[in-house]
Amino acid sequence: MGSEPLRPPRGTRDFYPEDMRRRSWLFDRFRAVSRGFAFEEVDAPIVEHAELFIRKAGEEIIDQLYHFTLHERELALRGEITPSIARMVIARAGGLKLPLRWFCIGQNWRYERMTRGRTREHYQWNAEILGEPDVTAEAELIAALCALWDALGLPRDAVALRVNSRALLEETLRGGVLRDRPDAFAPLCVVVDKLDKIGAEAVLDQLTDPTGLVALPREDARWVVETLSVKSLDEAAAAAPADSPALASLRRLFELLDAYGIGDRAVFDASVVRGLAYYTGIVFEGFDTRGALRAVCGGGRYDRLIESLGGPAMPAVGFGMGDVVIGELLADHGLLPEPPRGVDDVVVALDEPQRAEAIRVASALRAAGRSVELTLGRARLKRVFAHADRIGATRIVLIGEDEAARGVARIRDLASGEERDEKIR
Amino acid sequence: MGSEPLRPPRGTRDFYPEDMRRRSWLFDRFRAVSRGFAFEEVDAPIVEHAELFIRKAGEEIIDQLYHFTLHERELALRGEITPSIARMVIARAGGLKLPLRWFCIGQNWRYERMTRGRTREHYQWNAEILGEPDVTAEAELIAALCALWDALGLPRDAVALRVNSRALLEETLRGGVLRDRPDAFAPLCVVVDKLDKIGAEAVLDQLTDPTGLVALPREDARWVVETLSVKSLDEAAAAAPADSPALASLRRLFELLDAYGIGDRAVFDASVVRGLAYYTGIVFEGFDTRGALRAVCGGGRYDRLIESLGGPAMPAVGFGMGDVVIGELLADHGLLPEPPRGVDDVVVALDEPQRAEAIRVASALRAAGRSVELTLGRARLKRVFAHADRIGATRIVLIGEDEAARGVARIRDLASGEERDEKIR
Repeated sequence: MGSEPLRPPRGTRDFYPEDMRRRSWLFDRFRAVSRGFAFEEVDAPIVEHAELFIRKAGEEIIDQLYHFTLHERELALRGEITPSIARMVIARAGGLKLPLRWFCIGQNWRYERMTRGRTREHYQWNAEILGEPDVTAEAELIAALCALWDALGLPRDAVALRVNSRALLEETLRGGVLRDRPDAFAPLCVVVDKLDKIGAEAVLDQLTDPTGLVALPREDARWVVETLSVKSLDEAAAAAPADSPALASLRRLFELLDAYGIGDRAVFDASVVRGLAYYTGIVFEGFDTRGALRAVCGGGRYDRLIESLGGPAMPAVGFGMGDVVIGELLADHGLLPEPPRGVDDVVVALDEPQRAEAIRVASALRAAGRSVELTLGRARLKRVFAHADRIGATRIVLIGEDEAARGVARIRDLASGEERDEKIR
Repeated sequence: MGSEPLRPPRGTRDFYPEDMRRRSWLFDRFRAVSRGFAFEEVDAPIVEHAELFIRKAGEEIIDQLYHFTLHERELALRGEITPSIARMVIARAGGLKLPLRWFCIGQNWRYERMTRGRTREHYQWNAEILGEPDVTAEAELIAALCALWDALGLPRDAVALRVNSRALLEETLRGGVLRDRPDAFAPLCVVVDKLDKIGAEAVLDQLTDPTGLVALPREDARWVVETLSVKSLDEAAAAAPADSPALASLRRLFELLDAYGIGDRAVFDASVVRGLAYYTGIVFEGFDTRGALRAVCGGGRYDRLIESLGGPAMPAVGFGMGDVVIGELLADHGLLPEPPRGVDDVVVALDEPQRAEAIRVASALRAAGRSVELTLGRARLKRVFAHADRIGATRIVLIGEDEAARGVARIRDLASGEERDEKIR
């Protein structure tokens, strides 16, 4: 076999014990916050029918699908969980009590050109509220995001939220350059989402590309980019219809965030549209305030996705946050934890005749809920002590000839160095 | 979109909240037992280079690989975790302190013809001890399996273990029909593993197939099948060399299992060889004592796999147990749990002006570690009560105009029906 198969496929990660402890630490926090907000965990297959993901708006997520054919079926590794969640809701639409509060911690895949530090898979914490049209749902999700950052120990100003409304943008654009082009709105959002990444000129080129899905005249495209540069809600309000429901909804969201005590963590930003075609209302993203405004999560309202997949009309809102970017953020702040291995006892038989007694002692300690490493094979005491010390065990439990004869184990506390004999049954 | 993409791909499972609670219940037990035995959790990508899995012994697991080509790379969804574990060990062979005690809870895929109740994916609990040649490693793993069955609440006689040694079988066969055919042993094991499933005649046909990897004369094949029918260790010993290390190892294993207090749960059975080509020593499988001896887990020693993949010589032993068969077993015994949803409080604002206060109360309860469902949108009190009852919430926390004015919440205990006012901050 060549050497390539001995590495994980490019852009994928092995999780050695120390990586896995960190991942479990993070997932435990995802789950604790989800529990606090009474979200129920769900999961869906990592492989789906490719058609589930296909939308025609030029999204990166579709271009980067891990798409393959197997026994004449078009399949794909999921690039995002939301279509699977939508599929699950549709399959039981009649029997589910709304609103649903679902979360998922799952792996998503995207096949993209590799740059340093990018991965082709990441684990994402997703939370969705399905069946609730009110903006209280958005507020609840944003509060959950803030609770997670707090649970990770991040400083309060390390991550902030930018909030916008596609509905407001759509109202504005349809009062202007998109008057006769309702279909162009979703692909337009996909393009303008790249503003931070590729710059205004490249966005203008894509918006005006005559072979593209938007194909605006240059001056219209320029007006779109200007509209996106608005950074205050009042300024945006001036351009919107006076009785705009989208504007009222945004204002209410900021009031709700104040009630959650997180109003200071969110700002309005008209340039935030998110890159997924299906968002229809409020959209938001968390960004790293030190790291060149790197996005650390994103979400929004997608009131038409479920219907577009053949389900009932069902308002929905959700977010996703990936483990790789969180890991980078924590590392930048020196907050990446090194969770201990958590072994309580190293149990060792000094010689072969005490093996059976050591097994009985280990079994009794395990039955009492302790984490016990039983020394296997031939034990060299010096190595056992060095090992117990290295893994941070609490105690060494020794059974020698003398101890076995007396029906006890010799227990050494590794922090204090104290030793005592104890009957363990 | 057609209706097919609205179902999960054939043989895969969606996990709705109640399914997921059950899965988490099971995984929690996998993790608790693993912790008791001081195993460290690891994980590897679900997609690997296909070459990692390719062996030439006619194993089902290879025939059933989810194998695909993407951007000119031959990839596969993993059919089993052991080759990935071996790869990870090889990559850090110099830096790892042996023996390693690793476990993994991961999804494995196999593409096979669908029969009722079969799935194309399952989650498997794997535990491996790497770098330990002594049979104490096998005993430790078998004890972990028994601890898991106990943790699941299964009756002590619901699952039993059949134990054999491929090394013993190999000694016996190489003293006989395989004298000049050492290469035929691994594929022979793959064939005879099917004995229970396809019967002796079909096994004889495969062992004698002149185009197969074994291609024995009929009388030799018949002798192999007879050798496998031995059910006592003494009988097997009579056919083995007097100083057989494989026999000594097996005898010692049964002594060790006695020390663990699980000697009554394991029997010798010469027909157990397991279907994976790489096993070299002791092999074992757990079987459902009521369900037509259905295998519920399997494992064994694979001392040459790591070296065969290009790594150092490293003895290793491991097992795998899948979630689907455990679920069936628990269901047969009426032991499938229905873990509660675990919501502590349903918090509800009686009217819109109390919304902000309800949010503050919910946030305070969450900060105190409670699981809180905040009622979103417009609350109809009758529906909220019915809902709280249905999900098994502990309390309803009401904030009406009067409560908000007095800075309290009205708390109704749903078990006792008692109500009281409380300041929540």
